[in-house]
Amino acid sequence: MTYFNNIKKIAYEGPNSTNPFSFKYYNREEKINGRSMEEFMRFAVSYWHTFTGEGTDPFGQGTMVRPYNNLTGIDLAKARVEASFEFFEKLDVPYFCFHDFDVAPESDSLSETFKNLDVIVPMIKEYMKTSKTKLLWNTANMFSHPRWVHGAATAPNADVYAYAAAKVKKGLEVGKELGSENYVFWGGREGYETLLNTDMKLELDNLARFFHMAKDYAREIGFDAQFLIEPKPQEPTKHQYDFDVATGLAFLQQYDLQDTFKFNIEANHATLAGHTFEHELHVARINGMLGSVDANQGDMLIGWDTDEFPTDLYSTTLAMYEIIKNDGLGSGGLNFDAKVRRGSFDSDDLFYAHIAGMDAFAIGTKVAQRMLEDKVLEDFVADRYSSFREGIGLDILEGKADFHKLEKYALELDVVKSNKSGRQEHLKAILNKYLLETISEK
Amino acid sequence: MTYFNNIKKIAYEGPNSTNPFSFKYYNREEKINGRSMEEFMRFAVSYWHTFTGEGTDPFGQGTMVRPYNNLTGIDLAKARVEASFEFFEKLDVPYFCFHDFDVAPESDSLSETFKNLDVIVPMIKEYMKTSKTKLLWNTANMFSHPRWVHGAATAPNADVYAYAAAKVKKGLEVGKELGSENYVFWGGREGYETLLNTDMKLELDNLARFFHMAKDYAREIGFDAQFLIEPKPQEPTKHQYDFDVATGLAFLQQYDLQDTFKFNIEANHATLAGHTFEHELHVARINGMLGSVDANQGDMLIGWDTDEFPTDLYSTTLAMYEIIKNDGLGSGGLNFDAKVRRGSFDSDDLFYAHIAGMDAFAIGTKVAQRMLEDKVLEDFVADRYSSFREGIGLDILEGKADFHKLEKYALELDVVKSNKSGRQEHLKAILNKYLLETISEK
Amino acid sequence: MTYFNNIKKIAYEGPNSTNPFSFKYYNREEKINGRSMEEFMRFAVSYWHTFTGEGTDPFGQGTMVRPYNNLTGIDLAKARVEASFEFFEKLDVPYFCFHDFDVAPESDSLSETFKNLDVIVPMIKEYMKTSKTKLLWNTANMFSHPRWVHGAATAPNADVYAYAAAKVKKGLEVGKELGSENYVFWGGREGYETLLNTDMKLELDNLARFFHMAKDYAREIGFDAQFLIEPKPQEPTKHQYDFDVATGLAFLQQYDLQDTFKFNIEANHATLAGHTFEHELHVARINGMLGSVDANQGDMLIGWDTDEFPTDLYSTTLAMYEIIKNDGLGSGGLNFDAKVRRGSFDSDDLFYAHIAGMDAFAIGTKVAQRMLEDKVLEDFVADRYSSFREGIGLDILEGKADFHKLEKYALELDVVKSNKSGRQEHLKAILNKYLLETISEK
Amino acid sequence: MTYFNNIKKIAYEGPNSTNPFSFKYYNREEKINGRSMEEFMRFAVSYWHTFTGEGTDPFGQGTMVRPYNNLTGIDLAKARVEASFEFFEKLDVPYFCFHDFDVAPESDSLSETFKNLDVIVPMIKEYMKTSKTKLLWNTANMFSHPRWVHGAATAPNADVYAYAAAKVKKGLEVGKELGSENYVFWGGREGYETLLNTDMKLELDNLARFFHMAKDYAREIGFDAQFLIEPKPQEPTKHQYDFDVATGLAFLQQYDLQDTFKFNIEANHATLAGHTFEHELHVARINGMLGSVDANQGDMLIGWDTDEFPTDLYSTTLAMYEIIKNDGLGSGGLNFDAKVRRGSFDSDDLFYAHIAGMDAFAIGTKVAQRMLEDKVLEDFVADRYSSFREGIGLDILEGKADFHKLEKYALELDVVKSNKSGRQEHLKAILNKYLLETISEK
Ligand SMILES: [Co+2]
Ligand SMILES: [Co+2]
Ligand SMILES: [Co+2]
Ligand SMILES: [Co+2]
Ligand SMILES: [Co+2]
Ligand SMILES: [Co+2]
Ligand SMILES: [Co+2]
Ligand SMILES: [Co+2]
Repeated sequence: MTYFNNIKKIAYEGPNSTNPFSFKYYNREEKINGRSMEEFMRFAVSYWHTFTGEGTDPFGQGTMVRPYNNLTGIDLAKARVEASFEFFEKLDVPYFCFHDFDVAPESDSLSETFKNLDVIVPMIKEYMKTSKTKLLWNTANMFSHPRWVHGAATAPNADVYAYAAAKVKKGLEVGKELGSENYVFWGGREGYETLLNTDMKLELDNLARFFHMAKDYAREIGFDAQFLIEPKPQEPTKHQYDFDVATGLAFLQQYDLQDTFKFNIEANHATLAGHTFEHELHVARINGMLGSVDANQGDMLIGWDTDEFPTDLYSTTLAMYEIIKNDGLGSGGLNFDAKVRRGSFDSDDLFYAHIAGMDAFAIGTKVAQRMLEDKVLEDFVADRYSSFREGIGLDILEGKADFHKLEKYALELDVVKSNKSGRQEHLKAILNKYLLETISEK
Repeated sequence: MTYFNNIKKIAYEGPNSTNPFSFKYYNREEKINGRSMEEFMRFAVSYWHTFTGEGTDPFGQGTMVRPYNNLTGIDLAKARVEASFEFFEKLDVPYFCFHDFDVAPESDSLSETFKNLDVIVPMIKEYMKTSKTKLLWNTANMFSHPRWVHGAATAPNADVYAYAAAKVKKGLEVGKELGSENYVFWGGREGYETLLNTDMKLELDNLARFFHMAKDYAREIGFDAQFLIEPKPQEPTKHQYDFDVATGLAFLQQYDLQDTFKFNIEANHATLAGHTFEHELHVARINGMLGSVDANQGDMLIGWDTDEFPTDLYSTTLAMYEIIKNDGLGSGGLNFDAKVRRGSFDSDDLFYAHIAGMDAFAIGTKVAQRMLEDKVLEDFVADRYSSFREGIGLDILEGKADFHKLEKYALELDVVKSNKSGRQEHLKAILNKYLLETISEK
Repeated sequence: MTYFNNIKKIAYEGPNSTNPFSFKYYNREEKINGRSMEEFMRFAVSYWHTFTGEGTDPFGQGTMVRPYNNLTGIDLAKARVEASFEFFEKLDVPYFCFHDFDVAPESDSLSETFKNLDVIVPMIKEYMKTSKTKLLWNTANMFSHPRWVHGAATAPNADVYAYAAAKVKKGLEVGKELGSENYVFWGGREGYETLLNTDMKLELDNLARFFHMAKDYAREIGFDAQFLIEPKPQEPTKHQYDFDVATGLAFLQQYDLQDTFKFNIEANHATLAGHTFEHELHVARINGMLGSVDANQGDMLIGWDTDEFPTDLYSTTLAMYEIIKNDGLGSGGLNFDAKVRRGSFDSDDLFYAHIAGMDAFAIGTKVAQRMLEDKVLEDFVADRYSSFREGIGLDILEGKADFHKLEKYALELDVVKSNKSGRQEHLKAILNKYLLETISEK
Repeated sequence: MTYFNNIKKIAYEGPNSTNPFSFKYYNREEKINGRSMEEFMRFAVSYWHTFTGEGTDPFGQGTMVRPYNNLTGIDLAKARVEASFEFFEKLDVPYFCFHDFDVAPESDSLSETFKNLDVIVPMIKEYMKTSKTKLLWNTANMFSHPRWVHGAATAPNADVYAYAAAKVKKGLEVGKELGSENYVFWGGREGYETLLNTDMKLELDNLARFFHMAKDYAREIGFDAQFLIEPKPQEPTKHQYDFDVATGLAFLQQYDLQDTFKFNIEANHATLAGHTFEHELHVARINGMLGSVDANQGDMLIGWDTDEFPTDLYSTTLAMYEIIKNDGLGSGGLNFDAKVRRGSFDSDDLFYAHIAGMDAFAIGTKVAQRMLEDKVLEDFVADRYSSFREGIGLDILEGKADFHKLEKYALELDVVKSNKSGRQEHLKAILNKYLLETISEK
């Protein structure tokens, strides 16, 4: 059966099209700097928000009107698989992502949960044979079931820890089975509610042990996906251990895991941690740790994770700027970890929202690429730091300076007269010009 | 001359005293767990807020009524030194802290600035000979003068970098001269205003080079003070590189500086970074990096650094809890990086405020000590994690588990039934009881 | 049957009791300023958090272990009524509060929903006959069911508006039937998600019409409960119309409703709106609009409504200070709109949490009462504003001044020399002293 | 003499111009819907940020390099007047705004302060004779001098209150003298630092008395400027009484001042209060209280007022959308209450920044106008609320419904089936399309 009967394959029709079910800017095959848009952006649909999500919030029940709302249990799970591949095809996206819990029902019993997975995973594999859509990453949900109430790999309970290991073991096997290009760890409950009852040191040690075991097992079964940590500062826990990229980096270095992991960076998690999206991408990039992206946006006046579809063109432009400077995302991609608003409850809204997000990133990619080609920021930066390419500046960079030499230089100088304006306002005007003119010059 | 004529030496008079210029709870010589309160808390007065600060804010001029307001330049600087030692003596504190800029006027000219220091530092040294008050730490102000507009050790200008090196070189010499027990780096402008004009990688590399040079020079001159980084997420910069302890830890590890530094943790900086004060202390403690404390408090509804005197007893208790678990602060102390409100403009308020802060920490120390003696939280935590002291839990801790073994265990278990309540509400009630009853049992 | 078998009636046993199931400070019959603690605080249990809440959060399923977890539908509803009255009796509280939806299952069908209420409400009434516990307020849940997705009395859909009217009509009838002393309006979805699709003016006009109709109907049926608006800035909506007390006040004045309503003020809603709890109480009080209180607390580092049980003694003290100055809450009370943490999943935690909250308010009441009796703040304030009790100040207050007279006065004065310190730090130290000493003097 | 010698009059040169000192989008005489851009936007330069501001921040001294930096006192004030009119002419703006304190030095002595004004105001008047640039509004600075430490019209000191009256009296006279079209009240210190020492009721009563006296005096001297209140939630005070538009509205209604005042809405103040800029404009508009605009933007990750130049095109578009729906700002305008970053210290940056802001609003105006002409949102909204134009919905609007009628209707309906998707994601995509395509179609 089909689920989204009124929707045809979404095609690029250009900005003047009046068809709301068309791409206005995302033109899959159009080349940007030698790569097709599809290769460039590597979009993924997130299974949880798009097929499993019901539109609940802390004060309300589900609102989503879905063609499989009448089903339950394994039947519902199967219908969602069918619907998802129809959706992938109509949207023509190259990737999808899922948690085990999204695709197959989880029960109190581990064996039963595994059985459900053993029904659904082969079904997904079968669909993938005839679909272009591949698995960007999979992961294990270790935050929804009540057993994770105090954490999973950082639980104060060894039973829970073992249970988590079993789930991730299965997740790695599923990832290998479906050819997943990455495997994600988001530690939604790996943190604390109150320090009054917490042994943080033990929990962090255990978490590191867990990651080492995961790495060993992946190697054992020949699953060579990139491991990714997805930082988030809080929610659901009061304080999550992988607060942001820098915190993750400290942890990975301490426990000798920095070569095993990269980061999966979510825009809304960045802003909840007090950073811009581009800041987190930047920090990961200059440390060689930029792995993949959860493409969404938050509401800056709201203190929780709203996971909105990304439509802010400043954000998509500055994100793509970092990604292009990173020479792309490697095995990563742009996963829409984004949900339609609770009031956008029609299935049509799923298409509208993905179109909005894909168009927004297509625009951002073009603008960022043009800015990089014109070196409009790069040249400004090079000039700004030029004093480090000669004289005392070069000495500093080459390790030929010490405090004696620098003091001598400074005393001769005595007064600093060489500071130059940072030109922030002008650079922002240039960004606006590129935003408006790159597209209009199409 | 004397400056605070109406004030006598502040003495402990107990809670029933009606003398506002007395300690109600801080009893300098009273022993807690074998150490006097003075040794335990190692209070320091911060020179900048107490003697240099004028009560300006972004919308207003100074309001502080000080006995030396009629002076300027080096005369003002000298009067402040005199006043400060009178203040230290009347408050009977063991330590003080300063930036170079606080004690001696800074000019555009480096040589002139050094000359001013060379007048004031010997004067301070002379006063210290007859004073009990020692130097907890000194530092170089590299954020107030316009030359630091784009940073100091992370400036895009090599001249500025050299200038910063000269200032820190001098600072290390001054620290040695005055017997400072620590040397602090707070990078108020070591960050960025906008990524559009910033080469973050170069700036961080330069910062690390700077720290290595500082370390080398301190060793060269035999200055063995503990180096401290004071994290802050932002303000004055839009984004500061030493965002919080975890970020600092990542940086120090990357650049092989983790053995050279510890952290100076400020309560208000913690909360601005989205953490509690005790969280930052805890993270530093379990990493062996808890060096010293800037004891103040913020207003949780205000988005900037208010540097209020610490009076919240929950905060002082939970901070002292971490500090006692750390077996004290070593060469560090509790420095009041706190300023009287702009409306508390009398010199009397300087005494009121320090008394309020010292009493609040005296109370917090007693309550924390009692809680630790009674093991009221420690026992709860030990029990909560007891599953890691035997069986599969012990295997995990001892590195004897892998995903095969854990999965086998989990499948045999099949359903998790061993989770226990975290009891957060009850633990908070216990904290209240200790807060109220520890003191009343005096 | 009984539900909380291991719990006996919670008694006052004083701070030295080692029985965790006892009040340490709340002594029901103890008189404070002539009124018993019970009369003073008028505690209420909130039905939704305590009996209906399951411990779900946006990332997790329910965790609460409750004796009626095996039931569903109307059987579950009945069991909860039984359990609730057992709980009220064991806790010995004078009041409870509920939404229609908490006590009786809501279905898509209005008539069916009413039928369910018609089963449960008489059952509650029957229980109330033999219970001391009365109904502080009831309300209609118009935010959980998907029909309210775009609002209730501010919905863009007249059908929904009519449905909301029917629900509130029923709510008023139920309130009258059960002798409710207040009726609450919390407009969880009365706001907007985006201005792009919103006619705010029409929505506000409709809301005012709705309130007038509610007032008319209550008068018609002789239900003389106090109407209360409970402000909240956001969540679940992006922006809620009753943002805070001031916003509510503007609305009520505009639509001639200021005599019909007072405010039900929740601590956590206050802080989410950028105010302290005591600020909101104060603003309501000086406008004669302080009706009732949702007694809880938020986590100041978390951007959503955590509805924690109130344990912060500063907060309970400063809240009670306002309430005592208001000469109590009239028909209002202190309703624990608070939920045990998701990790505090035992039924025992329900008792621990309420005990913690009741003890915290008992302490706060005593401290506030003592501070008022000693006039320690009142005298300071009176002195601070004393210039308005004579001369030009009195002229200003009595309307005898204009700009001519004031300019003449100011020019004669020419320089202001009469400002006095605000003494904030000293006042905070005094607050600490009262907090610690009031209780120890028991 | 001239001050900005290297700058010629800034002309519109279109987006393809490579001259950084040209408008790319703001074309003064170009008509939008029959009005020239100049008339439409009514830009004003704020004297304080542009001529008086020195680039200080709480941690740093001034950085601004200005041609009059060598002067002091009244000479400096005069040079600034000269420079400002040169700047106005080169930028070709129709308006400017100032506080008394910006244009003339303020001393401790009121008479001396008045004398300074009496030198500068005639000089400004003389310049205005030959300049096209008029005075949008003036105001009295009652927050910078230490005398305002506890407030001005809400001070606890009657002397200060009288002093404030004298200042505003003078301000009204100056406004009349210079033909100001509005008079602004921003109560930077009209609020409190702590409730512990505050009589809020007395302060608010006094504030209202003050406003009535101001109104009376303006009428007396025939100064018919529009009075404007500029809300801000906090900073410099911990809590400011005019928190936001709604709070201001409550106050104005309570004290019968709603016909005397409109609001001057600042973008950055809106976001600090937890609202979007367009929200505040919207609330003022639907209440007939939208008077003028302080056009700037904040950094959403920063908790203080950054007063950045407005460059965010979403913000300028949505702001202009409200302003156009308001049929313009009447006697108000778009005042750049914005400062160049501390690192943008060249005089050139003053031009870059104003160009960036003016271009951003020109773009926003065009996009908003086009969206309104196409009724792309208006039609969606009309359809969304269409149920209120017939049947039961119309009854509700016309006051023909009561709870009986609505309950009857709802029971017949029994189940709500008529909700429609809010389409937020699609509407945001439409906004993006208008943003990009409006300009490219030029
Ligand atoms: Co994500
Ligand atoms: Co998210
Ligand atoms: Co500090
Ligand atoms: Co600070
Ligand atoms: Co509530
Ligand atoms: Co709440
Ligand atoms: Co403004
Ligand atoms: Co501002």
